[in-house]
Amino acid sequence: MLKFLFLKKETITLPEILEDLKKEKRLNLIPIEEVHKLSLEELKEVQAILVLGGDGTFLKAVPYAYKYDLPILGVNMGKFGFLTETYIEELPYTILALEKGLNFFEERTLLKVIYQNKEYVGLNEGAIMKGPTGKIIYLNLKINNIEVTTIYGDGLIISTPTGSTAYNLSAGGPIVHPKAKVFICTPICSFKINIRPLIIPDDCIIEVSVNKTDEDIHLLIDGQINLFIKKEEEILIKKAEKTLKLIPSLKRNYFQILKEKFQW
Amino acid sequence: MLKFLFLKKETITLPEILEDLKKEKRLNLIPIEEVHKLSLEELKEVQAILVLGGDGTFLKAVPYAYKYDLPILGVNMGKFGFLTETYIEELPYTILALEKGLNFFEERTLLKVIYQNKEYVGLNEGAIMKGPTGKIIYLNLKINNIEVTTIYGDGLIISTPTGSTAYNLSAGGPIVHPKAKVFICTPICSFKINIRPLIIPDDCIIEVSVNKTDEDIHLLIDGQINLFIKKEEEILIKKAEKTLKLIPSLKRNYFQILKEKFQW
Amino acid sequence: MLKFLFLKKETITLPEILEDLKKEKRLNLIPIEEVHKLSLEELKEVQAILVLGGDGTFLKAVPYAYKYDLPILGVNMGKFGFLTETYIEELPYTILALEKGLNFFEERTLLKVIYQNKEYVGLNEGAIMKGPTGKIIYLNLKINNIEVTTIYGDGLIISTPTGSTAYNLSAGGPIVHPKAKVFICTPICSFKINIRPLIIPDDCIIEVSVNKTDEDIHLLIDGQINLFIKKEEEILIKKAEKTLKLIPSLKRNYFQILKEKFQW
Amino acid sequence: MLKFLFLKKETITLPEILEDLKKEKRLNLIPIEEVHKLSLEELKEVQAILVLGGDGTFLKAVPYAYKYDLPILGVNMGKFGFLTETYIEELPYTILALEKGLNFFEERTLLKVIYQNKEYVGLNEGAIMKGPTGKIIYLNLKINNIEVTTIYGDGLIISTPTGSTAYNLSAGGPIVHPKAKVFICTPICSFKINIRPLIIPDDCIIEVSVNKTDEDIHLLIDGQINLFIKKEEEILIKKAEKTLKLIPSLKRNYFQILKEKFQW
Repeated sequence: MLKFLFLKKETITLPEILEDLKKEKRLNLIPIEEVHKLSLEELKEVQAILVLGGDGTFLKAVPYAYKYDLPILGVNMGKFGFLTETYIEELPYTILALEKGLNFFEERTLLKVIYQNKEYVGLNEGAIMKGPTGKIIYLNLKINNIEVTTIYGDGLIISTPTGSTAYNLSAGGPIVHPKAKVFICTPICSFKINIRPLIIPDDCIIEVSVNKTDEDIHLLIDGQINLFIKKEEEILIKKAEKTLKLIPSLKRNYFQILKEKFQW
Repeated sequence: MLKFLFLKKETITLPEILEDLKKEKRLNLIPIEEVHKLSLEELKEVQAILVLGGDGTFLKAVPYAYKYDLPILGVNMGKFGFLTETYIEELPYTILALEKGLNFFEERTLLKVIYQNKEYVGLNEGAIMKGPTGKIIYLNLKINNIEVTTIYGDGLIISTPTGSTAYNLSAGGPIVHPKAKVFICTPICSFKINIRPLIIPDDCIIEVSVNKTDEDIHLLIDGQINLFIKKEEEILIKKAEKTLKLIPSLKRNYFQILKEKFQW
Repeated sequence: MLKFLFLKKETITLPEILEDLKKEKRLNLIPIEEVHKLSLEELKEVQAILVLGGDGTFLKAVPYAYKYDLPILGVNMGKFGFLTETYIEELPYTILALEKGLNFFEERTLLKVIYQNKEYVGLNEGAIMKGPTGKIIYLNLKINNIEVTTIYGDGLIISTPTGSTAYNLSAGGPIVHPKAKVFICTPICSFKINIRPLIIPDDCIIEVSVNKTDEDIHLLIDGQINLFIKKEEEILIKKAEKTLKLIPSLKRNYFQILKEKFQW
Repeated sequence: MLKFLFLKKETITLPEILEDLKKEKRLNLIPIEEVHKLSLEELKEVQAILVLGGDGTFLKAVPYAYKYDLPILGVNMGKFGFLTETYIEELPYTILALEKGLNFFEERTLLKVIYQNKEYVGLNEGAIMKGPTGKIIYLNLKINNIEVTTIYGDGLIISTPTGSTAYNLSAGGPIVHPKAKVFICTPICSFKINIRPLIIPDDCIIEVSVNKTDEDIHLLIDGQINLFIKKEEEILIKKAEKTLKLIPSLKRNYFQILKEKFQW
């Protein structure tokens, strides 16, 4: 029997297919919020995290996946997403493949955000954004200790390739294949119009500091963690030590997902 | 003697040229915040509003200009702006022209924003933006009572031609000549990428309503007025009955300002 | 009986609905290329031009519409277009309305392109583009006799509102409502990135001249007329004296067309 | 004495600094077009290619650099370029460093374009563009044998990171650090607006084929080689086996070049 941590979107009721897999004793689902109750022994038996919902729910599972070094299998109850690639109807085939011991993880670069000595992990992006007053902000961007530019505008997104189709895309950034070893620095509504998204190797160290503001600004990681940033305290962003392991759809690859999601 | 309402940026000390014009009894400057102390008789003698500062200071004077139907003369202490076109060194020439009775106002379309039965006037734009949580918002856009689209993203800017070089430009909108009789509807970081800035005749009635959110969102007018908007209450935006009269630089026209500001 | 000039895309066979309208003696269709054979008397009886095909076919009919001052009714055999708004199934209703004497033309601004003393009329755009060698070109743009900028890149599009959803859109320009009284100047692949589409009132006179090239460059009007331009000869673009009269769909307005074409 | 192949822009006269280096017998310059006259023995003594001019002249030297496996030192007589980073005044310092045997090459990814069994090497990009008639073209894009999309528009650019600040930037693509191991696929004036620049790992195999056209279209490599492409013949683009070795400025790194060129 496969043993999974389990996270689902609240509004979803457990689909029959999943009920059946449980009844047939092929799947043992442990609610993700109870993971701390597991003994080390029990933890070792957990093979993956099963996420039922959209990309937002998937992102909620990322810190667990990082902490316990578990792959995530994302199942979408509606239209497939960039992260939740598998349809519920396809789930039995994926389960079968896992039962057979097949190993078909895709590795995705994660970013680590360090602020005030605390570390946060993100799969999509870290976004430094203007605060509640809606006033334009000034951000100093340093890469590998070299001053690159001062952005003034609504903010700055540091995105992974996985996050390139999320907030980065809305802000005008390019689509980046998950296997590209880069980060994307995309300004949000830059007042200077001679600026463009900037792609850098993912072994770069990125530092962002707030300039000329007396007000709080946001640091939003994966749309999940929302911190308030004070002036003159630096945010450091770099590649995380570990990757996120994603159990992909057996049916579609990245380009096919792009083609269908964007109706290319 | 010319009689002006006067508004200056706090950090600026009165320049000598202005001191001289006062001493020579050519200029009588009444602090704008004391306008309510003037009798109707005294008000009639006021010819214009003199703004000393940048475009932000100019925008603060707009509601006064609208209420008392006065033209604004914007003097920039640093680099000229899109609104504060006149350099302090050029001010005496403009004053001379006004003393001679020359009439050289430029008329700029203003927008009127109506929310909860209150009216607000804007020279640049009304921006409906995500609130303090930084979460994506859903906005229904209706023009002349026809449903145009639902925007989901960081928000929507309704800009005048004058505002086209302000927030609209940062969000990807085009530059629009002040004499063009249009409004610009520019989405902010739209999640859908098949959307573009939309230019409509300025006699259109624009309605924006918030969809699917339990949280407060912002309505920011000219970066000056910041309201919190609740779900299901409509924002109505249309052309204001009166225009803003701007006393332009004698030295440069709109295209020359563009050329210099953008280093074309 | 309605009398129409008739232009259809070559690959299309006459649909039954049209055959029926002819048989019922409700429609008399005169091939557009035979218009010169008509006497003045016969010409007076012609009420409109019927176009069967896509937007490209519609554009071919524009010079006839201008010369003979006739409205165009565009019928699309596939998916409706921005110009050919009417489906073949809807044609009988439009014919009925016209038989009843209803007058429901939409007027669209046309541009007039003058080069070497010859005049050309365009409904969508005049595009000045690099020539066969594919080398970057330099174009001087003057508006109302004021030098605005030098564009270097692949070229420059001067678009009407009607043309805003055509080449202008591909080159990054905004969508402009047909009733907006403006032209759009959109650079094609500008080498300078601090440049943006520029919207100007449609009573402006636009002059474009070629700078620093020994090679031929293209002047393409509505994708139909393709001229070769030499250095130092000016292209003049302004609003044409007459408008194009378009017989619209009875079923959908401009915003509905946008919504459906772009899947908003 | 350093022995260099030498290529200069025709309009440039040899600067004094270079004359002096020659007189002092520190530099031996062999005109690049005479390289075929050199014996193998003589070729072995050549250490680099010296380019005097702008980025266009630098690109002319690339096929020589590739064939003879020589680094290029680009000296700009005007404003420094993205490729010709070194000012003439800085040349003596670079020469000194080379005399001391310092090795400070930057390696830049080259792309190889294969068409009709012929191979071409490019440092910036391969651009497949519409031909002399200026008509929209249809291009099938396959990556690693997977159909990604059909582009219809003015064309498609496959750019290296080095080329990202050239034609790619004009067409709306992002800026990519030269050390990023990626290619950029940027459509030129795509008719579909739901398409974006696409970044892929540089070990991908890219195939582009022409669809639905009876006319010639262009394949332009680095703005230097201009081929005409027929329907149904595939263009294959991939990473070249060797890199381009660029002798960088001693004074400025990539981010400083960006900062200065774009006035960030």
